[in-house]
Amino acid sequence: MKHFDGSACIYAFAPHMQPIGSVSPGERFTVMTHDCFHEQIQTEGQTLSEIDYDRLNPATGPIFVDNAHPGDLLKITLHDIRVADRGIAIVVPGEGLLGHHVENSMVKIIPINGTHCTYKGLNLPLAPMVGVIGTAPSEASGTWGTASPWMHGGNMDTKDICAGNILYLPVNTEGALLALGDCHAAMGDGELCFTGLEVQAEVELTLELIPGAAQKWPVLETLEAYMVIASGDTVDDALYEASFQAVTMLASCLDMTFEEAYLLASLYVDLKISQVVDPKKTVRAAVPKSVLSETHRASLFRGDNVIPSEKK
Amino acid sequence: MKHFDGSACIYAFAPHMQPIGSVSPGERFTVMTHDCFHEQIQTEGQTLSEIDYDRLNPATGPIFVDNAHPGDLLKITLHDIRVADRGIAIVVPGEGLLGHHVENSMVKIIPINGTHCTYKGLNLPLAPMVGVIGTAPSEASGTWGTASPWMHGGNMDTKDICAGNILYLPVNTEGALLALGDCHAAMGDGELCFTGLEVQAEVELTLELIPGAAQKWPVLETLEAYMVIASGDTVDDALYEASFQAVTMLASCLDMTFEEAYLLASLYVDLKISQVVDPKKTVRAAVPKSVLSETHRASLFRGDNVIPSEKK
Repeated sequence: MKHFDGSACIYAFAPHMQPIGSVSPGERFTVMTHDCFHEQIQTEGQTLSEIDYDRLNPATGPIFVDNAHPGDLLKITLHDIRVADRGIAIVVPGEGLLGHHVENSMVKIIPINGTHCTYKGLNLPLAPMVGVIGTAPSEASGTWGTASPWMHGGNMDTKDICAGNILYLPVNTEGALLALGDCHAAMGDGELCFTGLEVQAEVELTLELIPGAAQKWPVLETLEAYMVIASGDTVDDALYEASFQAVTMLASCLDMTFEEAYLLASLYVDLKISQVVDPKKTVRAAVPKSVLSETHRASLFRGDNVIPSEKK
Repeated sequence: MKHFDGSACIYAFAPHMQPIGSVSPGERFTVMTHDCFHEQIQTEGQTLSEIDYDRLNPATGPIFVDNAHPGDLLKITLHDIRVADRGIAIVVPGEGLLGHHVENSMVKIIPINGTHCTYKGLNLPLAPMVGVIGTAPSEASGTWGTASPWMHGGNMDTKDICAGNILYLPVNTEGALLALGDCHAAMGDGELCFTGLEVQAEVELTLELIPGAAQKWPVLETLEAYMVIASGDTVDDALYEASFQAVTMLASCLDMTFEEAYLLASLYVDLKISQVVDPKKTVRAAVPKSVLSETHRASLFRGDNVIPSEKK
């Protein structure tokens, strides 16, 4: 199985990047990912002033996907996320949603043992996920640091980006140029203090292409739902955008008027928080599969079914 | 079983209200609730200009709870919510998160058959919940229309307020003065278009008292989590308040510093959207029971464990 060892990584998603290697559609491969600190934190006694902030959120890649062309949709199936045997979480004054209540920095190295981690005497379950995953942004979108989420993906910090689920990202340039990193062994919706349980990991995945079906925002498919993942300057802004996308998706799939789909969404679409602490905030609007027939689902990513972006 | 038939209801939660009857702690009883339109909508051909807006969101009550004193916590166990055989949902220009996209009003009378409803040829599952439920607010808090959520409860539109779960509300006055209404047969997190599937219902419940343990915000207990339900002018404001409560709850229960609890919350507390369309927006911060031992859970609502409110 092809393996990317993490020796080459990026700190920004740019429209033009030099690929480190390539994969074919349908090929199963593995990627070693760094923790969000690029392993600069090794002991609890370290002070954060020692850290080079230009090396945060490394994403392994970019990986060229053979035959990926602008306008295609990249279908990413996540098979497994194997996390390291310890993770890091930190608290910093001023950081995260409640950072002004924090008086002292705290670095915690948290042991991981199979399916659980241990913190302050508590034995807590793991739920590994990928924090940063994205493709080259469009020229119009420009360059985005790996700390930020946007239409190309990036630091979405969405805990449903986990093994068993499928992520759909836009292809904006030849080869798509996928990169990923910043795995978390556990994270709550919100990522309150601005770190999850930050870990090195090995991610096993397969990429496929859906020609001419690019969406404006990432879409995540779980066992139960299609989730539009949108970001904005505030949670309120992100909720607006994700909601508009979900209602438009329903109207298009079910051949309903906007009003009819809006009503249906009010009864069945769940708005969910991804993270509230990155430079842009991220939410997801979950359209349950139960409202869509097999035929509807098949039409979801047709080439003629592109959902436009909408600003208030 | 004692039964309140819905003939007496309120449109505002006030510090001083005249009770319509009383129940004893531990007594199982039923309450008939009106739909949010007070049954003013009977056909799809009606125009909304015919509606008396002063009669929206009726809450059956207030019900006096014997031996309830200010400072107690009212424990409300919801046993069952039996909904009518049809529900109403409407779309109105300017209303809800995406209301400026709506060109025409639409009234839908939606048939309900046992566990499902039928809309536009789709057979959709029900998930009955209580939209409005509250106690008399404190004098300091003042009077709140039933359309708004706040610290006393009210129009929280939180879909986990459903059969099988337990809601904890503050007791601010003698007898607590509980009232409830505005049940939904189905609603997505967010309540995008500003109505759920609005129904008349019969709610079966039991009330108990925990002396001297009032919380500042409602708390909901599900099989898996304790959820602090907080509201604010924006979703961002509500998320801040709910998060602060959850972190303070964890710090208190687990005897941790604020920083230690903040870190734990970042890994395990889920921020969830309740509704984004009422006069105040409502969210919930879910603390999973898996991080709390039986001892911790028992200490959650101790009289000496009151969580203060906090404003940014």
